Amino acid sequence: MLRLLTRRSLNSGLGYRALSVKAIDIGTRHTPSHRTFFEQDGKAISPFHDIPLYVDQQDPAVVNMVVEVPRWSNAKIEIATGEKYNPLKQDVKKGKLRFVHNCFPYNGYIWNYGALPQTWEDPTETNSDTQCKGDNDPIDVCEIGSEIGYSGQVKQVKLLGVLALVDEGETDWKVLAIDIKDPMAKQLNDVQDVEKHFPGLVKATRHWFRIYKVPDDKPENKFAFDGECKNKAYATSIVQETHDAWKRLIEGEKPMGKLALENASVESSPYKSAEPVQVSSIHKPMPKDDQVAKADPTWHYIP
Amino acid sequence: MLRLLTRRSLNSGLGYRALSVKAIDIGTRHTPSHRTFFEQDGKAISPFHDIPLYVDQQDPAVVNMVVEVPRWSNAKIEIATGEKYNPLKQDVKKGKLRFVHNCFPYNGYIWNYGALPQTWEDPTETNSDTQCKGDNDPIDVCEIGSEIGYSGQVKQVKLLGVLALVDEGETDWKVLAIDIKDPMAKQLNDVQDVEKHFPGLVKATRHWFRIYKVPDDKPENKFAFDGECKNKAYATSIVQETHDAWKRLIEGEKPMGKLALENASVESSPYKSAEPVQVSSIHKPMPKDDQVAKADPTWHYIP
Repeated sequence: MLRLLTRRSLNSGLGYRALSVKAIDIGTRHTPSHRTFFEQDGKAISPFHDIPLYVDQQDPAVVNMVVEVPRWSNAKIEIATGEKYNPLKQDVKKGKLRFVHNCFPYNGYIWNYGALPQTWEDPTETNSDTQCKGDNDPIDVCEIGSEIGYSGQVKQVKLLGVLALVDEGETDWKVLAIDIKDPMAKQLNDVQDVEKHFPGLVKATRHWFRIYKVPDDKPENKFAFDGECKNKAYATSIVQETHDAWKRLIEGEKPMGKLALENASVESSPYKSAEPVQVSSIHKPMPKDDQVAKADPTWHYIP
Repeated sequence: MLRLLTRRSLNSGLGYRALSVKAIDIGTRHTPSHRTFFEQDGKAISPFHDIPLYVDQQDPAVVNMVVEVPRWSNAKIEIATGEKYNPLKQDVKKGKLRFVHNCFPYNGYIWNYGALPQTWEDPTETNSDTQCKGDNDPIDVCEIGSEIGYSGQVKQVKLLGVLALVDEGETDWKVLAIDIKDPMAKQLNDVQDVEKHFPGLVKATRHWFRIYKVPDDKPENKFAFDGECKNKAYATSIVQETHDAWKRLIEGEKPMGKLALENASVESSPYKSAEPVQVSSIHKPMPKDDQVAKADPTWHYIP
């Protein structure tokens, strides 16, 4: 049984045997060269490939989540799928560090936003429900608990539902989940419990994803299933599918394209490093002229 | 003609001759003893009494505003009306530093929130429209521009409208205004322009004030005028009324009660200090055991 907790969760009292996964910040946040690497027992690991998806093999609805963006912040930080050992980095677009705009009435992201490790939305397979292909990334997750997380945090979350965002013809699943340590976690067991205890949040989540790129002069995003948030069972099966796709990828059955698949622990993978790797051997020297970027506080009113 | 700009606005290019008003932080933010004093030419001034209300005697709709709470923050910081020279301090309730709760879908205050100097809501006078008495404070203002201000900032704002919150039988006017330097300021000249350019903001403002104390087990707040946001002319006349009330107060025509009326510059006031006062002579030594408090990030869903 795979069990993993981050440094900060060592004393969670939940009885999981803690593995010492550390997030290692290299450089200054909001500069182009900033990276957050992951380390376990002093060796680099990939948050994409080495952090186990399932927390408890008995329960496919409890999974590890890598927090990329804390609630109420704007920097679009994500797993660098193309860089060795897949550190977190802030997305760069047209030479500029990317921040999501503040769309009224929201401030930044409205959940702790991140990815599920050991998942992959296969761009060569068409989903039978959405008729769309994957977006070549790990699956995204919105963690709706009350804690404000941090970039590089690994949380254990309970799956609750999933929205099927369709972004330029690609399926971009948005899983809804809650930290298993959240005070409300016990009362949230499926998608209807979200509406019951957090009324309006599913609607706001849909609204948020629909409009968040409009200030960049992009069209509104669309959803499959008329925007319906599918339930926990559906979410669990989608996560399982993306995990299976990742397995095929990491085991060399799928072309890797630009993905960096080197990993520290996947025994069945041809990309497993022969020797342990130090974070210090991966990251490059930081340029001294890095500028610290800031989010634009403007509130955009999308009619 | 009274003209005042803060330190940070010296190069605003608006042609106002800048007076060097400084906000002086004493102690650590979010501890009980933290204060923000105001200083001009090295001498203490009161933000309640010494910062002029009107920026330009020709235009009663352009006024100075003292920012107490920056947008998207939670600490309930306000002018300490009862302390000498009226520094800003964080409100304390039942021995605890007070933070407003996060009510879904908002994060903290949704505007730069503050007070208009040289105004007073007279608790002994009944307003003929609301049939309520004043709440013994300077009048409150919500500045809706895109900049995130700072506690202790003095902004020049343009009046746009006013909501009449009724809080436990007292009138608590909430003026809507925008920083005259905001990129949208030219297009916002009255209350209907707010709805036109910032659709939903007036409604959200009403909603925010209605529910913000509900997580503290208080009833929803009510509004006079069925919640209507009165227009700029009405707001301007209310501000003028509260300025006249302040004048009576500062000139000794009204009982001072627990208000601290000592000031540095009001010639007609019996409370004017005989000699300039140093900030260092007012504030008390900081206790060493001050604890830094934090806002609770929980999102409250008010049905």
